[in-house]
Amino acid sequence: MHIGDVPVGHGHPLAVIAGPCAVESREVTLETARAVRAAGGAALRGGAFKPRSSPYTFRGMGEEGLEILAEARAVSGLPVVTEVLAPGDVEAVATVADCLQIGARNMQNYSLLDAVGEQAKPVLLKRGMSATVEELLLSAEYVLARGNRNVILCERGIRTFERYTRNTFDVNAIPLLKRLTHLPVIADPSHGTGKWYLVAPVALAAVAAGADGLLVEVHPSPDHALSDGFQSLTFDNFRALMAAVPHVARAVGRTEGVAAP
Amino acid sequence: MHIGDVPVGHGHPLAVIAGPCAVESREVTLETARAVRAAGGAALRGGAFKPRSSPYTFRGMGEEGLEILAEARAVSGLPVVTEVLAPGDVEAVATVADCLQIGARNMQNYSLLDAVGEQAKPVLLKRGMSATVEELLLSAEYVLARGNRNVILCERGIRTFERYTRNTFDVNAIPLLKRLTHLPVIADPSHGTGKWYLVAPVALAAVAAGADGLLVEVHPSPDHALSDGFQSLTFDNFRALMAAVPHVARAVGRTEGVAAP
Amino acid sequence: MHIGDVPVGHGHPLAVIAGPCAVESREVTLETARAVRAAGGAALRGGAFKPRSSPYTFRGMGEEGLEILAEARAVSGLPVVTEVLAPGDVEAVATVADCLQIGARNMQNYSLLDAVGEQAKPVLLKRGMSATVEELLLSAEYVLARGNRNVILCERGIRTFERYTRNTFDVNAIPLLKRLTHLPVIADPSHGTGKWYLVAPVALAAVAAGADGLLVEVHPSPDHALSDGFQSLTFDNFRALMAAVPHVARAVGRTEGVAAP
Amino acid sequence: MHIGDVPVGHGHPLAVIAGPCAVESREVTLETARAVRAAGGAALRGGAFKPRSSPYTFRGMGEEGLEILAEARAVSGLPVVTEVLAPGDVEAVATVADCLQIGARNMQNYSLLDAVGEQAKPVLLKRGMSATVEELLLSAEYVLARGNRNVILCERGIRTFERYTRNTFDVNAIPLLKRLTHLPVIADPSHGTGKWYLVAPVALAAVAAGADGLLVEVHPSPDHALSDGFQSLTFDNFRALMAAVPHVARAVGRTEGVAAP
Repeated sequence: MHIGDVPVGHGHPLAVIAGPCAVESREVTLETARAVRAAGGAALRGGAFKPRSSPYTFRGMGEEGLEILAEARAVSGLPVVTEVLAPGDVEAVATVADCLQIGARNMQNYSLLDAVGEQAKPVLLKRGMSATVEELLLSAEYVLARGNRNVILCERGIRTFERYTRNTFDVNAIPLLKRLTHLPVIADPSHGTGKWYLVAPVALAAVAAGADGLLVEVHPSPDHALSDGFQSLTFDNFRALMAAVPHVARAVGRTEGVAAP
Repeated sequence: MHIGDVPVGHGHPLAVIAGPCAVESREVTLETARAVRAAGGAALRGGAFKPRSSPYTFRGMGEEGLEILAEARAVSGLPVVTEVLAPGDVEAVATVADCLQIGARNMQNYSLLDAVGEQAKPVLLKRGMSATVEELLLSAEYVLARGNRNVILCERGIRTFERYTRNTFDVNAIPLLKRLTHLPVIADPSHGTGKWYLVAPVALAAVAAGADGLLVEVHPSPDHALSDGFQSLTFDNFRALMAAVPHVARAVGRTEGVAAP
Repeated sequence: MHIGDVPVGHGHPLAVIAGPCAVESREVTLETARAVRAAGGAALRGGAFKPRSSPYTFRGMGEEGLEILAEARAVSGLPVVTEVLAPGDVEAVATVADCLQIGARNMQNYSLLDAVGEQAKPVLLKRGMSATVEELLLSAEYVLARGNRNVILCERGIRTFERYTRNTFDVNAIPLLKRLTHLPVIADPSHGTGKWYLVAPVALAAVAAGADGLLVEVHPSPDHALSDGFQSLTFDNFRALMAAVPHVARAVGRTEGVAAP
Repeated sequence: MHIGDVPVGHGHPLAVIAGPCAVESREVTLETARAVRAAGGAALRGGAFKPRSSPYTFRGMGEEGLEILAEARAVSGLPVVTEVLAPGDVEAVATVADCLQIGARNMQNYSLLDAVGEQAKPVLLKRGMSATVEELLLSAEYVLARGNRNVILCERGIRTFERYTRNTFDVNAIPLLKRLTHLPVIADPSHGTGKWYLVAPVALAAVAAGADGLLVEVHPSPDHALSDGFQSLTFDNFRALMAAVPHVARAVGRTEGVAAP
């Protein structure tokens, strides 16, 4: 399985997908894409269509955001991972994206799963906020059953009683999924914790537990981000994380290093 | 707000919406519709499009199911509540349905919420499996913000550690929602508990807590139902529940009785 | 089974146990005891030994609190339910209390369960914050196995992701426990919700679901309570609840009314 | 802070405490102690007094178990960590134990916390099944406030909706606690997952996240263990884990290696 030219999964280098939560401007997106590439990232993430709990908050730049992502790919050389929210948008998003993300809120949106299963781009499927591991695997089956075999599973934190963190990153799911399926498994410590200062240790924990990659929010100025600033890494913090990841990967026998396009 | 001719909400009779989990055949659906009407129900529920965790289980009869529901309405006189799963299906489902149901898995499917917000039929919005009360209200705002003011909120159980019940019906949400919003609030004790023998006591608890209505699964032969048989009431058990409901409603000052078309 | 002279359980009148969270002064306790009696309560609750998350908050008046409870019983005629925290305190507390309460934090404190199982006073056993119904029943077995057959089970809310309420009162546990055991089952809507304005509707829901009694926090001036003021009823609100309870009890076939000493 | 001669905490080698869930016989305990020592463990764990959900299962060998632990220490040279369940047992257990364990069920057993706070042996305090990180810290304050400054915090999994694992090991708590307190933080991946095949990856994840030590269940023949066999490592699997731990510790900058007595 590949995102653009980057292979993902068992036996391949660790893939770090990073970028802003939302595509909020051309400048921020291009600047972040260059920084992610320079720090050794494998792909760019960023949302043009954003699912938000409230209809009165920023819902993304839409088609204009897709154009910015295409430019960011051209400039940085990084393949692009971006979310799709509706079956009717799949074709347009797939024109630009190298990998389609299904967000946690849509893990059991079966018409959307059917739609991404019927096209060829790989699908990054996030675990729902209170989905069991079994339900995540069954949702992947919706995509697989329509003929698209390129599904990447993503643990992104579950909902618990704990109020200090935004979600509870479920590190147990990483080795459990690796045991139950051949599909690549990646970790999103940004949503998984909701606090930037927990992102690096939890990211390293996920790598130690066997994750095939990471999905990390990075922003040039987290305090000014339109969404999720509190869980975004600065460029400096992202570089520090990228420096640490290969050591932990090697310590658990992943000798292929970290992937780059 | 009305489902067909039946008013729902504060100051109105209690509305009991009942029927099979899925429309699985013409015979079962018509038989159940007649039994629900005879027992005093206000509307018929039944899924033509079914969201299922696994793609390999029965996913509903689709358009044929809608035709059966239309016939059941004609035969019984009951308005019809049925689920819609995809924005592209809203128009077809709204042609038949008197009220569109958004299921728990789709509570944060924003393109679907937008779509049902742009048509005129009332919307029954179920709380997500791990949605907070605040998130349920914000999802309702998606529909309201598009111009459809007819939203009915439905508590249907949340996901907890308890393994004896399928979900944990959150009775606290009933008075909390009644305090926070003017929208009607109904209770689904069938999904809320997952055990037929808990449906009646939990339904009565919801009424005592101030619910404006109930959503109950009824099946002529639960052991042979294609889905959710274990939480479905037999006709006898449904009649017993309908006999008890008005007493509890009156005990908490709801003097309008139980609604009928 | 009796608390003092008051019978509790199936086939008996509904028992409402009420009083302040903590015994914080002689005046407040006696005044509340009289108000509870006047409003039709069956027993007085109040903590002399208080379990508190922080060691730096008020932990109760201890032995002096027990003396105040004894005086409150003499003055009001109400039997007394109070919590015991340590095996070494059981004898002293049992000298005064008519019923020993085991709090949620101690539901699996087995040395304490053993100790209350070896004395004769009835035991009110609260469900732990994240205890399953099965674990609650097994904890009751600890008391029963030592020879004390007088155990009352109490649902008091479980811990979930919902942040609006302090706990999530699990109304499903009421009919489930009534089906699984002959032991009396009561409900604590005060801790179960943590909000005074939810106490009455959730209390009535518990009665509708089949509870054999209620445990309610009442305080002459909740805003000045040393603990749990936000979930305490004023005397007026408690009287209103007591007026409503018999109607709901009767509506679900509990014809014996409400218990008094 | 030391367990016997072994220092624990920031700036010290990683401490691996291992042994059987329960002291179930002299032979098994001595054999396991020798194997733990040979594989590089820092201390022996094993319960003489066992908290069990049901009173009808094995509750430990009691005082005889303590004698076996003393012999295992003499034979292996490993200091002993063992659980205490009741205030009245603290003195006897402290005579043998080098470190007193407070189990998850007793995290808010305040009379027990007071009792271990008034003696000198270090205390290993496990997080309750649904305790927040804040509550864990407040329970530690109970011990500290009585004068015992030697408290080790232990993350051991929390209760969630996920049914595949016994508990959900909360890796986020490790860096969070390390940020909030100077107290050592260790991880129990055995209870944290409940599945032996998840213990090693989750243990390595905890080390990568910054844990100061591990608490691991090891048994010569897990299939025949009287309790928790399914989550116990064989000697071979424990040796493999011990071989991997120093690599991950070094990868995250813990250069002091692994502790031994």
